[in-house]
Amino acid sequence: MNAGTLLNWVDASYVFLAAILVISMQMGFALLEAGSTRMKNAGHIAGKQIISFAIAGLFFWFAGFAVTFGEGNGFIGWSGWMLQTGAKGEDKVFASLSWADIPLALKFLFQMAFAAVSLAIAWGGFAERAKFSVYLVFGILFTTIIYPVIGHWVWGGGWLSEMGMQDFAGSTVVHLQGALAALVATLLLGPRIGKYTKDGKPNLLPGHNQVYSVLGVIILWIGWFGFNAGSTMSVKDGFFGYIALTTNLATAAGAIAAMLIARAVLGKADITSMLNGVLAALVAITAACAFVEPWAAVIIGAIASVLTFFTSLYFERKGVDDPVFAFSVHGVAGIWGTLSTGFFASPRLVEYTGIGQAGLFYGGSFHQFYVQIIGVLGAAVYVALISFIILYALKATIGLRVTPEEEIVGLDLSEHGAYGYPEHLESAEKPAYIAEINPKTLSRTLDMRLQQRAE
Amino acid sequence: MNAGTLLNWVDASYVFLAAILVISMQMGFALLEAGSTRMKNAGHIAGKQIISFAIAGLFFWFAGFAVTFGEGNGFIGWSGWMLQTGAKGEDKVFASLSWADIPLALKFLFQMAFAAVSLAIAWGGFAERAKFSVYLVFGILFTTIIYPVIGHWVWGGGWLSEMGMQDFAGSTVVHLQGALAALVATLLLGPRIGKYTKDGKPNLLPGHNQVYSVLGVIILWIGWFGFNAGSTMSVKDGFFGYIALTTNLATAAGAIAAMLIARAVLGKADITSMLNGVLAALVAITAACAFVEPWAAVIIGAIASVLTFFTSLYFERKGVDDPVFAFSVHGVAGIWGTLSTGFFASPRLVEYTGIGQAGLFYGGSFHQFYVQIIGVLGAAVYVALISFIILYALKATIGLRVTPEEEIVGLDLSEHGAYGYPEHLESAEKPAYIAEINPKTLSRTLDMRLQQRAE
Amino acid sequence: MNAGTLLNWVDASYVFLAAILVISMQMGFALLEAGSTRMKNAGHIAGKQIISFAIAGLFFWFAGFAVTFGEGNGFIGWSGWMLQTGAKGEDKVFASLSWADIPLALKFLFQMAFAAVSLAIAWGGFAERAKFSVYLVFGILFTTIIYPVIGHWVWGGGWLSEMGMQDFAGSTVVHLQGALAALVATLLLGPRIGKYTKDGKPNLLPGHNQVYSVLGVIILWIGWFGFNAGSTMSVKDGFFGYIALTTNLATAAGAIAAMLIARAVLGKADITSMLNGVLAALVAITAACAFVEPWAAVIIGAIASVLTFFTSLYFERKGVDDPVFAFSVHGVAGIWGTLSTGFFASPRLVEYTGIGQAGLFYGGSFHQFYVQIIGVLGAAVYVALISFIILYALKATIGLRVTPEEEIVGLDLSEHGAYGYPEHLESAEKPAYIAEINPKTLSRTLDMRLQQRAE
Repeated sequence: MNAGTLLNWVDASYVFLAAILVISMQMGFALLEAGSTRMKNAGHIAGKQIISFAIAGLFFWFAGFAVTFGEGNGFIGWSGWMLQTGAKGEDKVFASLSWADIPLALKFLFQMAFAAVSLAIAWGGFAERAKFSVYLVFGILFTTIIYPVIGHWVWGGGWLSEMGMQDFAGSTVVHLQGALAALVATLLLGPRIGKYTKDGKPNLLPGHNQVYSVLGVIILWIGWFGFNAGSTMSVKDGFFGYIALTTNLATAAGAIAAMLIARAVLGKADITSMLNGVLAALVAITAACAFVEPWAAVIIGAIASVLTFFTSLYFERKGVDDPVFAFSVHGVAGIWGTLSTGFFASPRLVEYTGIGQAGLFYGGSFHQFYVQIIGVLGAAVYVALISFIILYALKATIGLRVTPEEEIVGLDLSEHGAYGYPEHLESAEKPAYIAEINPKTLSRTLDMRLQQRAE
Repeated sequence: MNAGTLLNWVDASYVFLAAILVISMQMGFALLEAGSTRMKNAGHIAGKQIISFAIAGLFFWFAGFAVTFGEGNGFIGWSGWMLQTGAKGEDKVFASLSWADIPLALKFLFQMAFAAVSLAIAWGGFAERAKFSVYLVFGILFTTIIYPVIGHWVWGGGWLSEMGMQDFAGSTVVHLQGALAALVATLLLGPRIGKYTKDGKPNLLPGHNQVYSVLGVIILWIGWFGFNAGSTMSVKDGFFGYIALTTNLATAAGAIAAMLIARAVLGKADITSMLNGVLAALVAITAACAFVEPWAAVIIGAIASVLTFFTSLYFERKGVDDPVFAFSVHGVAGIWGTLSTGFFASPRLVEYTGIGQAGLFYGGSFHQFYVQIIGVLGAAVYVALISFIILYALKATIGLRVTPEEEIVGLDLSEHGAYGYPEHLESAEKPAYIAEINPKTLSRTLDMRLQQRAE
Repeated sequence: MNAGTLLNWVDASYVFLAAILVISMQMGFALLEAGSTRMKNAGHIAGKQIISFAIAGLFFWFAGFAVTFGEGNGFIGWSGWMLQTGAKGEDKVFASLSWADIPLALKFLFQMAFAAVSLAIAWGGFAERAKFSVYLVFGILFTTIIYPVIGHWVWGGGWLSEMGMQDFAGSTVVHLQGALAALVATLLLGPRIGKYTKDGKPNLLPGHNQVYSVLGVIILWIGWFGFNAGSTMSVKDGFFGYIALTTNLATAAGAIAAMLIARAVLGKADITSMLNGVLAALVAITAACAFVEPWAAVIIGAIASVLTFFTSLYFERKGVDDPVFAFSVHGVAGIWGTLSTGFFASPRLVEYTGIGQAGLFYGGSFHQFYVQIIGVLGAAVYVALISFIILYALKATIGLRVTPEEEIVGLDLSEHGAYGYPEHLESAEKPAYIAEINPKTLSRTLDMRLQQRAE
C-alpha cells in the first residue's frame, strides 16, 4: 500500500460520511413537512418518508444509476443495471464517475441519497391530499426515468455537461427538478380544502409543530455540508473545506435576510419565513459553492432568501396551494443559484474545478450565464413535461386525490388506518371531524376502525 | 510516519465515525419507544435511555469489555478490567481484537455502543409497567454477565468463533440477545393493564406519536451504517462500502415488503408495520451484510420483513404483550438473518472475510447452516436462562412491576415524580386518571405531588 | 503526494466531522430549551436557535475569528477580518492556530461552531421573557467582542495561554462564558411571571416536553465527542480516541450520580436532574479530557453532577430564575472542570499535550491549580462586566423584556405572530390566556391576529 492507494480509501471514508449526511436529510424532510402540516396527517407525512427513501434505495439501484451514469449517449445512460458492469469493468460503464477513485458501492450510495432528496422535494407538493398509491407510482418513475435523465445531462457526461454547465451539487439537478415535479403535482391536485375562501383569498392553514419544522431545517442545514462539500468525492487539497465555508456563509446570510424582510413586510420575524430563507440560501449556494468567493456566497444566499420570501407570498395569493412552499424554496432559489455562477464564478475557482468559465463580474462575458440559462430551461422543460404526463395519466385513471371526507378526517386514517397522534386527536378533535364524515365514502378498513371506536 | 502508520490513524478516525453512528442509535430507540407508547409514560421512556447508555458506558468499561474480549477460555474472558492491560500489553490481553490496529479506547467505544444497543432492545420488553429499579439492576447484570459472554463466544475468540460462526455485526450477538431478554421480561411482567379483553382478545394500545417513531426508525437506519459497515474497523480496500450497500438494499426491500404485506392483510399501509419491516430487515442483514451478494440482500430483507409482520401479529394474539415488538423485530429477524448466511454466503465474500464457509445455494453443503443453527441455539439458551434467573429473583424479592394505580397514572409520575408532558396531560387527561387512583397505594412523593396539584 | 501531505487532508476530513458534530449541538440546544419551557413559547425558542447559529456564522466570520486568533497582543487579536490574510499569509496572521495543518476554512468552521455553542448557552438565560431584538443585539456583540477576547486569552496566544492554562476544549472559554452571560441576563431580566409566590417561594414551571429535552441531551452528548475529541484537530497517534473515552466515562458517571442524588434528596429519579447531571459532567470534562486518567474522569463527572444538582436547587430558592439552569450546568460545572486539572492532571498526559503542569495529586504542587483559578477569575470578570454593560444599556434604552401581556400570551405570538403549536394551543389553552390579555398593549400584528381569530 502506498499513499495513493491510501488516499482512495480515505476518500471512500469521506464519501461514506458525506453520504450519511445526505441520507440524514431524510429526517429533515420528514420533520419539516410533518411540522408544516396538520396533526391529522402527521403520521402519514412522516411515514411516507420511509417509503420515499426505500423507493430510491431500490429503484435507483435497479435502474436509476445506470440511466444517470451508465454508458449511453448525450441524452441517456443505458448500462450498469443493478450496478452490474459485466465484462466491461466499472471504469468503462461508469466512465462519467471515473474521476472519483472510490468503490462503486459508495458512488452509488452517495448519488442515491441525492436522488432521494429530489424525490422528497417532489413529494412535498403532494402533501395533505394525494393518495398514497399516487406517491408510490410517481416515486418509482421519478427515480428511474425523470431524475436520472437530467442527472445524465449534467453529471453523467450528457449534453449539458459537454456545454460546461456549472451545477456543482445540484441546484438544478436535484432541487429545481424536485420543485418542478412538486409544482406540477400541486397544480393538478388543486388546493387543499379550506385553503381559499369563496372569493379566492388564501386562509392560513398553519403547520402543527414549529419545533419539528425548526429541527428539520437544522438537520437539513447540517446534512447540506455532506451535499455540497461531499460532492468533491475526495479530500484532495482539503478543497471541500472551502465549499463548506461558502455554504455556511450563504445560509447564515439567508437566515438573517429572511428575518429582516419578514419583520419589514409582515411586522414580525415570522418563523416559517426564516426557515424558508435558510433553505432557499442552501438551495442557491448548491450550484455555486465551488465556484464563488465568500463575499459572493453571502450575497447569493441573501438574494435567494428574499426572492423566496416574495415568490412564496405571490404564489399563495395566486391560488397555488404548495403546502410546504416546495416550488418557491427549491425552484425559484434553484434557478437563481444556477444562474448566479453566470455572474459570480471566480476565475481561480473555475480554473481549480475545471468546469465552465468565469462569470460576468469577472470576465465581462455573458457566456457562462447563457450556458446556465440553457441548463435551467432544458431541465425545466423535461421535468415539467414528463411529470405532467405521468400525473395527468394517473389523474385520468386511478385519480390523484383522496375523497373530501378522507381529506377532512385526515390521511393518517384514510391511507394508513390509524391516527399518528391518537391521544391528541381522539380526545380533542375526533368529534368535530367525525361529524363531517359520511362513513359510506370511506374505505372499508377506515369504516371498521371508526366503528370500533364508536362502540 | 509511513503509509502504514497513517492507515492506523485513518482507521481510528473511521471507527470513531462508526462509533458515533452506533451511539446515535440511542436517540433512535428513545424516539421509537416513546412514540410507540402512551403519553403518560413518555418522559420515563425517553429518560431511561440516558441511564441505559450510562450503565453501558460505565459497566461495560468496568467489566463487560474484559469478559467479552479479554484473555480467558472458550466460554469467558477474564482480564483487562477497566481496560487495564498491566504488564501484558494490549495485544496479549485483547488478542481477539488485535486484528484491528486502532487505539484500545476506540475499540472499547465501538463495542460499548453495541452492548448499549443490545441493552436498549432488552429494555424494550419492560415498557410501560416495570419498576425503574428493575431496569437498573437488570441493566448492570446484562452489560457484565449476559451480553459479554455471548460476545466472547462469537467475537472474543470463544467456542462459536472457533466453529466459524458467521455473525458479522451481531444479528445474534446484539439483536437476538436483546430480544430474548425482552421476551423473558415481557412474559414475567405480564400484559399491560387494558391490553387484553376479559376473553383474551388484544386491544390496540396505540403509541402516542408516530412522528417520533418514524424519526426514530430513520435514525436507526442511518446509525446502522456505522453498525454494519463500521464492523470492518478499517477502511482497507473500501470493503465497508460494499457492506453499506447490502445493508441499504435489504432495508429498502424490507420497507417495501412490509408496506405491501400490510396492505394485503390489513387493508392499509399500516405505519407501525412499515417501521417494523425496516427494522427487521436491518436486523437480518446485520449478520449477513459482509457475506452475501446484493440480490441476496434484497431477498433476506424482504423475508425478514414478512416474517416479522406475521410473528408480531401471532404473539400479540397469543397473549404476549411485547409493547414495541422487540422479540418479533430483533429476535425472529435476528434468527433468520443468522441462518440466512447458511443459504446465501457467497464464496468470494467468505474468502475475502476469512470467516466460515459458503452457503447451501453455492457449495451445496449444509455445513455453514448447521454452524449457524448451533450459534443461534447456544446463544438463545444462555441468554434466556440467565435473564430468567435474574428477573425471577427480582420478581420474588423487590417485584418487577409497579402497582396498578401507578401504571394507570403513568410511570412518569410514579417513577420520576412529574409528567413528561405536563401541559398536555394535566389539562386533558389528569382528571380521568386521577379518578381511578387510590392515592394510598402510591409512593410518598407522588402523593405529595398529587396533593400539591389538588390544592 | 506523500504521507505527510495526506495526513493533512485526513486531518481536514477529521476536523470536518468534528465540526459537523459540534454544529449538531445546535439541535440539542433547540430541543433541550424548547422541551424545558412552555408550549406558548416553543416556536420562538426553537426558531431563535436558527438565528443564533446564523449570527455566529456571519459575525464570527466578519470579526470574531480575527479577534480570537488573529495577530495582536496578549489581550486581543486584530487581523484577519473575514478570514482575509492579505500579503502576510495565513501562518503569520493566524499563528496561534498554525499547529493545526488544515485549511483555514475548516479551522474557522470548527471554531465558529464553538462560539455558536457559547452563544446558545448565553441565550438560555433570556428564555421565556426577553425581546427578540435583545437577543439579536446581544448575539452580535457576544460573537465579536465578548467570546473572542476570552478565546484569544486562552487559545489565541493571549496571556492565559502564556501562563499555561489547561482548558482543552473550553470549560471556561465556551461554557463558563456562556453561563455567566446567561446569569447576568437572568438577573437583569428578573423572574418569569408566576415563578415565585408572593412570599418568594419558587413554583414549578415545568417544561412542556421531556422527550424533546432527553433527545436534546443525547444529541449534546454525541456532539460533545466532536467538541472534545475534535479539539486535537488531528488524527495523529489516535490520541483523540483517548479523549473520547474520558469524555464518555465522565458523562456516564454524571448521569448515574445525578440519578442517585435525585432519588436520595427528592425521593424520585427526577428526569430534569438526570439531564442536568449529564450536561454538568460533559461541561466539566471539557477542560480536563486530555489531561486526566480514566478513573479521574469518572470522579470529575460525578462531582460535577452533584455540584450542579445542589446549586441549581440553591439558586432557584434564592430567587434566581434561570429557566434552563444555564449557570448551574455550564457555569458551576465549568469552574469545577477547569479547576479539576489542578488536582488530577496526569504527568504523562501533560507531557504528551505540552500544556501546563501536572496536578496536585501527582506533583504535590499547587502551581497548576493557581493557574486555573486565575484563568477562571480573569474570564469571569471580563464576561460578566461586558455582558452587564451591554444588557444594562439595552435595558435603559429599548428595554429587555416583553410586556406582561405578551409574556402571558407567549412569545410565539408576541415576537413571531403565530403559535408554534396552533392546534394544541388554540383549542385547549387560548381561551385561558386570552382572558388575561389586554389587547391594547399587544403589538399591532398580534392585535390583528387575535382579531382574525375572534372573527
